[in-house]
Amino acid sequence: MTKKNAFYAQSGGVTSVINASACGVIQAAKQYDQIGTVYAGNNGILGALREELIDTYAEDDATIAALRHTPSGAFGSCRYKMKSLEANKAEYERLIEVFKAHDIGYFFYNGGGDSADTCLKVSQLSETMGYPIQAIHVPKTVDNDLPFTDNSPGFGSVAKYIAVSTREAGLDVASMCETSTKVFVLEVMGRHAGWIAGAAGLASEAAGQPPHIILFPEIAFDKARFMARVDECVKEHGFCVVVASEGTRYEDGRFLADAGNKDAFGHTQLGGVAPTLATMIKDELGYKYHWAVADYLQRAARHIASATDVEHAYAVGEAAVHKAMEGKTAIMPCIVREEGEEYRWHIGEAPLSEVANVEEMMPRDYITEDGFHITEAAYKYFAPLIAGEDYPPYKNGLPQYASLKKVFVEKKLDGDFAIK
Amino acid sequence: MTKKNAFYAQSGGVTSVINASACGVIQAAKQYDQIGTVYAGNNGILGALREELIDTYAEDDATIAALRHTPSGAFGSCRYKMKSLEANKAEYERLIEVFKAHDIGYFFYNGGGDSADTCLKVSQLSETMGYPIQAIHVPKTVDNDLPFTDNSPGFGSVAKYIAVSTREAGLDVASMCETSTKVFVLEVMGRHAGWIAGAAGLASEAAGQPPHIILFPEIAFDKARFMARVDECVKEHGFCVVVASEGTRYEDGRFLADAGNKDAFGHTQLGGVAPTLATMIKDELGYKYHWAVADYLQRAARHIASATDVEHAYAVGEAAVHKAMEGKTAIMPCIVREEGEEYRWHIGEAPLSEVANVEEMMPRDYITEDGFHITEAAYKYFAPLIAGEDYPPYKNGLPQYASLKKVFVEKKLDGDFAIK
Repeated sequence: MTKKNAFYAQSGGVTSVINASACGVIQAAKQYDQIGTVYAGNNGILGALREELIDTYAEDDATIAALRHTPSGAFGSCRYKMKSLEANKAEYERLIEVFKAHDIGYFFYNGGGDSADTCLKVSQLSETMGYPIQAIHVPKTVDNDLPFTDNSPGFGSVAKYIAVSTREAGLDVASMCETSTKVFVLEVMGRHAGWIAGAAGLASEAAGQPPHIILFPEIAFDKARFMARVDECVKEHGFCVVVASEGTRYEDGRFLADAGNKDAFGHTQLGGVAPTLATMIKDELGYKYHWAVADYLQRAARHIASATDVEHAYAVGEAAVHKAMEGKTAIMPCIVREEGEEYRWHIGEAPLSEVANVEEMMPRDYITEDGFHITEAAYKYFAPLIAGEDYPPYKNGLPQYASLKKVFVEKKLDGDFAIK
Repeated sequence: MTKKNAFYAQSGGVTSVINASACGVIQAAKQYDQIGTVYAGNNGILGALREELIDTYAEDDATIAALRHTPSGAFGSCRYKMKSLEANKAEYERLIEVFKAHDIGYFFYNGGGDSADTCLKVSQLSETMGYPIQAIHVPKTVDNDLPFTDNSPGFGSVAKYIAVSTREAGLDVASMCETSTKVFVLEVMGRHAGWIAGAAGLASEAAGQPPHIILFPEIAFDKARFMARVDECVKEHGFCVVVASEGTRYEDGRFLADAGNKDAFGHTQLGGVAPTLATMIKDELGYKYHWAVADYLQRAARHIASATDVEHAYAVGEAAVHKAMEGKTAIMPCIVREEGEEYRWHIGEAPLSEVANVEEMMPRDYITEDGFHITEAAYKYFAPLIAGEDYPPYKNGLPQYASLKKVFVEKKLDGDFAIK
């Protein structure tokens, strides 16, 4: 086998463990003489198009090892979906040009559904444009909506953050509800699927424990039923904790957060599901409320990452390299859950042609019949994904995250490529 | 010394370490034969007025020990400020009646400024109503606004949560800013004082690191100056992280969060400082933004508590009992910072007459001249308070917090007392 370099890039919304996958790719690559070096794209695929390549082998081993406990995308990520070959051939030609110039034979793309699609297209270049390249997709997304894999690396840690935060805030509200806040609303990510909202359900280990109500994008929001349940809950427990997906929507598809409210200046009210629900509750029931929007805090929270998730993320990165060395292309290493009571998993693989652009929703039987909580089946699915703690090192009370030198590879091509 | 029982109650907004103080009180009390048992008020002082007393000695030792790592108020807290003796004598007479009925000679009140005032009044009952009771205030508040004590137990853990979250979210935004979010706004607690917002500054260890802008209640908000700084920051670093106190206000005193915006139905817009700032930034500068409101998550986050804060909280609880046994009354144990480079502290005491109803603001020299960040002096003050981690035990991926049996003491008085 001739020696070839590898290209690795991070794509889409980052997670608290995507760098663990980068760590897996780089550490595994170093085991193979056939791999010259691993170049990382500066800001994802844009780094390839712009010929901005970071030489990961120029970082010292300790820094690469520290990626395992560093959140967000250390090499920069981007939201940039490459069009079809027909629509923008120039872009693909540019990719090949850059790959050729830097002798790149392996393409590792770390992202969600969109990037699985890009990765598939790159693998097809190998045939259509006559340049040999093996393209492997490394799965990542907090949304947990990738098909084939039992779960998406990145999800387990958000799930843990949300479950822990719900338990903690629930205790807070419980202790204050006699004279103060009666309803607390926590807004969580997941515009299309309710996986993250569902994970909040893990906080509840006995009937009546928070969260009392979970709102999923999969279940149409019925204001009257919701209000009745909130009221019932306050009357029964003295308080009510609601966890709402940012994608909570009405029967007609409108998001609660985009309900068309205008402020005094005629601007569409920014909303957020949590403040919208809180206002409704105040207006209809008169209860004192508080609300929180975790936003990026949830997907960046490496300090409370799931050890299982970190292992998964590292393993898919590592496996991507091993599979490339076995000659594979156009595949995605995935997490396979084994049968049995005890949680066991191994790495499998899925063909990219069947992964790209498919979104996996919460199965209906993971949501209780009334649409407000998770079932035992969901609990069994979620629980192992948040298991274990994997704390980063601390100094002066703060987590110490990897800081890269980012040594850029000298450009070999003339001029800049204009991104459309 | 005759044997007397003790009464302990939690007051006001809870923290992630107030139960560590409860643990300190109860474990210290058990060392003294002079103390019969420790009764905890169910929902704070209301528990005394309603004769709802929880026998803490009926809990097993392991449960009491677990209070040290359990957030929120395990016995229930309340927002209820007792009026002056003249305004509501009946309430004080009721307190004495309950204390007499249950042979209570020690009053430990765990709260902030308002409860220091109540505690002082209770100590005065001893003279004015001829019933001997020693009243000790155990300091607690995330707002860090109590005088005399170097810091308020509860604050260090919020400070750590905010500094950690700011660092993590900052990495997230940094990695995505090329094609996505350019400005991130995190809203934090602290309606009157900027201590919590200021602690976010710890996340920045080198020039240019997030947070780039901190908004304090102490510094009047100047929209034009703020926008110019945001823009400058995005142009220089590619992104801008703003941490804003919920108490951020205009020169004329209006809170940003209550800026009078109305929604389509004529309701005052719920606001929140973060969405308000985010909308302004979008309108003025056009940058893509995200915002988060940590709300209760920050003060309940025992999973990332400061070890120093936990030690402080336990120590003030423990000291309250020792000081009562020394015959003290109308005092508050406080944290005294010792001179020298290395952080050392010990427990001192402050007279309640000088503690009650005094709010400690951020000193002006803790805020940079431009009003947007903290100074080296502030850094030196804050840093030791977030030092050390004190993780709770986990099971199935979730922190295991104390769950009390709550054995109520049989009522000895007739009828219910009507709370006004």
